[in-house]
Amino acid sequence: MGKLTYVKSASQLLCMDTGHGPRTGKGMSMLGIIADGSVVIEDGIIVFAGSDALAAQFLGTRRGEVEVIDASGKVVAPGLVDPHTHVVYAGSRENELELRLQGEKYTDILQRGGGILNTARSTREASEEELIRQALTRLDRFLLHGVTTIEAKSGYGLTVKDELKQLRAARELDRRHPIDVVPTFMGAHAVPEEYRSHPESYVNLVIEEMLPAVAERGLAEYCDVFCEQGVFDIAESGRILEAAERLGFKLKIHADEIAKNFGGAELAAKLEAVSAEHLLKTSEEGIRALAKSGTIAVLLPGTALFLMERAADARSMIDGGVAVALSTDCNPGSSPTVSMPFIMNAACLTMRMTPAEVLVASTINAAHAIGRGNEIGSIETGKRGDLVLFDVSNYRQLQYYYGMNLVHTVIKNGRTVVKGGVLVDRNEPAD
Amino acid sequence: MGKLTYVKSASQLLCMDTGHGPRTGKGMSMLGIIADGSVVIEDGIIVFAGSDALAAQFLGTRRGEVEVIDASGKVVAPGLVDPHTHVVYAGSRENELELRLQGEKYTDILQRGGGILNTARSTREASEEELIRQALTRLDRFLLHGVTTIEAKSGYGLTVKDELKQLRAARELDRRHPIDVVPTFMGAHAVPEEYRSHPESYVNLVIEEMLPAVAERGLAEYCDVFCEQGVFDIAESGRILEAAERLGFKLKIHADEIAKNFGGAELAAKLEAVSAEHLLKTSEEGIRALAKSGTIAVLLPGTALFLMERAADARSMIDGGVAVALSTDCNPGSSPTVSMPFIMNAACLTMRMTPAEVLVASTINAAHAIGRGNEIGSIETGKRGDLVLFDVSNYRQLQYYYGMNLVHTVIKNGRTVVKGGVLVDRNEPAD
Ligand SMILES: [Zn+2]
Ligand SMILES: [Zn+2]
Repeated sequence: MGKLTYVKSASQLLCMDTGHGPRTGKGMSMLGIIADGSVVIEDGIIVFAGSDALAAQFLGTRRGEVEVIDASGKVVAPGLVDPHTHVVYAGSRENELELRLQGEKYTDILQRGGGILNTARSTREASEEELIRQALTRLDRFLLHGVTTIEAKSGYGLTVKDELKQLRAARELDRRHPIDVVPTFMGAHAVPEEYRSHPESYVNLVIEEMLPAVAERGLAEYCDVFCEQGVFDIAESGRILEAAERLGFKLKIHADEIAKNFGGAELAAKLEAVSAEHLLKTSEEGIRALAKSGTIAVLLPGTALFLMERAADARSMIDGGVAVALSTDCNPGSSPTVSMPFIMNAACLTMRMTPAEVLVASTINAAHAIGRGNEIGSIETGKRGDLVLFDVSNYRQLQYYYGMNLVHTVIKNGRTVVKGGVLVDRNEPAD
Repeated sequence: MGKLTYVKSASQLLCMDTGHGPRTGKGMSMLGIIADGSVVIEDGIIVFAGSDALAAQFLGTRRGEVEVIDASGKVVAPGLVDPHTHVVYAGSRENELELRLQGEKYTDILQRGGGILNTARSTREASEEELIRQALTRLDRFLLHGVTTIEAKSGYGLTVKDELKQLRAARELDRRHPIDVVPTFMGAHAVPEEYRSHPESYVNLVIEEMLPAVAERGLAEYCDVFCEQGVFDIAESGRILEAAERLGFKLKIHADEIAKNFGGAELAAKLEAVSAEHLLKTSEEGIRALAKSGTIAVLLPGTALFLMERAADARSMIDGGVAVALSTDCNPGSSPTVSMPFIMNAACLTMRMTPAEVLVASTINAAHAIGRGNEIGSIETGKRGDLVLFDVSNYRQLQYYYGMNLVHTVIKNGRTVVKGGVLVDRNEPAD
């Protein structure tokens, strides 16, 4: 019998509503709150979640070492899930922020060979080990912000060799760091400079060489495409994603970020993609299509703020029956943050999502957006022992005490990895 | 000879431009950057700031114990200054955030006896010691966010007795906590419920009883008034502030936050107030008046974000020659944050202030806004040894890596009080 971790007497234990599939409508407000709640984790898996009184009874039936973590006065939530990151990259692009403050457009910077193409250059130059080293620092910071699982996309390599390098780095991060990393292939993130004059050849390269190479090596679960005016149009995006589906990839789309009514959401719905991301400029028809197909809207309010654009219309989506998830979009151009707590604040203050909705969107719905809804994202027996303890006495205070990281303790697979806001153990156990 | 603190080899040492008075125009972009810079502090005072090479020479002339703090790879700035807080209060008001998300106005909540009046009830009920206890927790968090000096206003007592209690609590905080606290009397923060039917009597109470009682005890340096439609009008605000000036108080005004063209900025200029705060709805004439009088605009972009309002027009102010400072506005209603780093991000992303301007606005200009421009706010010999070390390699990254607290080390009066993002020593020395 393994060691037990006993998280005791939380002011509020946010179990999330039980149920299957992503939460929609009123379900996005149901946190399954247990006052004075406790959780017991054994061998990395939750074996009890309920009231203190019942926890004591439950523990009476078990033997062996028990590590007690006092959660009194705190809110305990499922470990946060970030379903959309580009965390594997080299370099930084702070110069672009000043250009944008002076009025330059993100797309103009990209057209001039900056933006994604700038990061592509530094990522191609970096060794796999250097990519891992830089990303590990970011993962440490993710952990300090309560995040226990992330998705990570390729898309800064833009050659067969460099896309594979990025995805191998993601796999290594998953192995070396407590955070679980779900890999997505996104060769269609930008048309690289050497294909500028004949972009259709790059689409063919993605379909004919990259996708099979990634599939063969089992390096990614998802395929994503930046479907946008001047990047990959609806037809190209459709071709790439259909090819990916035939190879067994699940689908995601960067949709409707910049151009109005470009049809990205509609394409995601038509292909029954697991998720569509950004959606700043999605039409009403697009919202209806997402609701109908059950495609999760992954919203990135930090990116909108950082690009000084109007945020996505989360209220219409939620009220229209779309399951909404939230993400940092962590990347070196349009969102260089790793703070899910901040993203939740931004979702509340710039998209009028409620304190309850942002929690559902950052846990169970985010888990579903990366195909992990049955393993993580809620506090239920049988799920992974991934928990975050916040230094507040009720969940509303997480949005009220805004602009601060209120994470106190993070537990990953039953193991304490952050305590008092400090990393205590970032290495994976040897076994 | 005292112990020396030697902060060594910063990637960028941000000394701030030398000069007198608040910085305006191009001066708001001058950071006085020294690459590979070092600082030496003796008996709490900066005795050297310059290049590493010169620091070594300088130290050769001194004897005694030297504590070396390695700042390589980091940016070193003056300790951050927050010139506008309401940090002394009891209770929390997270319920109002949900009301506002549903569309209720901040002023309507106040009219119904919520808002400031809600906090006034809990602050009146709290003992002085309880007020101190709650505020100390907030001051610890300020320190973790790089803040070494704050202003603190009364204004939740709204009786002679309770206003004095709040100000005594502020004085105690200054004594007990490393952060220096500059006290402001703000009895005219709201008309208390018991004066609702005859607000003019409350104005008289402020002028005839509160101001003299505060002056007599030396409990505040500044007097501030919430000059706003439905709170204190221009005539009432003028009467209170003129009475305060006669008693030796320096002046501040909460101006033009909600009603358009209310004339708060113009009043501040006319009275030559040290600062005018908020200024969301200030007219062009108001901006010109502030520039002319040299009144500092203390902008609170977090408050605008939290109230889901458009931020102040910082660009017109800076371009029009107004000295701009930034602040959290830390208070339980419209801005429950203590994070100056976040406020700087918000200033950049919602008011288009540049990464350089936000630093000037949070250090030297903020210091001038509370009459401390000659003691703190820049890194120069003779100033206090208040420094913050950020975990970034250049100052632009502070706005680029947004939404996160990048403070690594905080030094107050030469003493390390935060290290690795953790409080190491919050008690004042016994002497
Ligand atoms: Zn993305
Ligand atoms: Zn205020």
